[in-house]
Amino acid sequence: MRLSELSERSGVSTATIKYYLREGLLPPGRRISATTADYEEAHLRRLRLVRTLLQVGGLSVATAGKVLRHMDDDSLGMTIRLGAAMWALPHPSAPDAGEEDEALATARREVDRLLDDVGWESARELATVNPDHTSLVEAVASLIRLGYPWNAEMMTPYARMMHQVAVHDLDFTETYPSETEQVEAAVAATVLLEPILRAMHRIAQQEETVRRYGIT
Amino acid sequence: MRLSELSERSGVSTATIKYYLREGLLPPGRRISATTADYEEAHLRRLRLVRTLLQVGGLSVATAGKVLRHMDDDSLGMTIRLGAAMWALPHPSAPDAGEEDEALATARREVDRLLDDVGWESARELATVNPDHTSLVEAVASLIRLGYPWNAEMMTPYARMMHQVAVHDLDFTETYPSETEQVEAAVAATVLLEPILRAMHRIAQQEETVRRYGIT
Repeated sequence: MRLSELSERSGVSTATIKYYLREGLLPPGRRISATTADYEEAHLRRLRLVRTLLQVGGLSVATAGKVLRHMDDDSLGMTIRLGAAMWALPHPSAPDAGEEDEALATARREVDRLLDDVGWESARELATVNPDHTSLVEAVASLIRLGYPWNAEMMTPYARMMHQVAVHDLDFTETYPSETEQVEAAVAATVLLEPILRAMHRIAQQEETVRRYGIT
Repeated sequence: MRLSELSERSGVSTATIKYYLREGLLPPGRRISATTADYEEAHLRRLRLVRTLLQVGGLSVATAGKVLRHMDDDSLGMTIRLGAAMWALPHPSAPDAGEEDEALATARREVDRLLDDVGWESARELATVNPDHTSLVEAVASLIRLGYPWNAEMMTPYARMMHQVAVHDLDFTETYPSETEQVEAAVAATVLLEPILRAMHRIAQQEETVRRYGIT
């Protein structure tokens, strides 16, 4: 399809599409004359992902470019492509994250113990390079710093439930035919699903509260 | 205990505690002379919650005050106290939320259908007043606007899993003896647990990816 059709079908203006092409967020079309290029369904799909990252994920153009470059590097296997793309997504730091303190050291130890308890061996091996591991440790450190009771046993059911969610996520991405589409779907699902899960969790808390205590 | 001991045990400076007292985030101590007041364990507990809301939850002093006033209103039953406190927590709006459009109308209908499918009757009844319901509708609308396939069937397993998480949350808060402590624990758990669940979810995705595809 021509640029004008790509614009019409995606709802993105031709000026914006040209900007994405210049910034490398969208691979170039197949050139068919000095002034015209041909675009495919893959471009339409990619454009949708770019908008998801920028508009819903709130990523900068530079960060989105990084995520997409990792995804496109097909010299890498599925796990690395997916992992690298996910790790390039923003990782909110705990607001009170600061220098190394006792709480952080305890949190690191407790999270290790949690991963052992639930048998997440690869997560344990990848701990030092995984920014999500750092986020988890920081969140647990906040809890410890505030003096809340913490124990890994209390947290294992949550980890197991989140594993169920992840199994469901991957079953869904596997319904896509190619590796590239699977990686695209996984990244889009992370950005789009997190706010959905968060809202569902809070609604479920309210539903369960009414079931237990009635509306009084 | 005296103000100085409250400060020492909580790790919060006396100046800050006085500021919280003035702003109504902390109930006054029992006055024992013109210049001294006596504080109890409940003050220590409340101080911890105030820091959780301000430092981890990122709430303003005004918003935290609102949350706490709802919690303290014991003319209200458990559900309303808890609901009102939770609803006063910040509800991030979808970045592309704007005027009413077709996607938003579709999302509203689809979320209704989802709640029917999972049998969340109270959530359905409270929909119009619940800000988390609005967050869910907006998140679904983002997905529809971007042209991703959506169907309520695909989402029901997620809703059921989030319900399991909520059941676990409430089982935990019920281990606290009084209603006030239960409401405090529920609010603190929401603020502290959300970043933990999010990080666990992403780590679980990586763990499951390695299990399925190896590290290649």
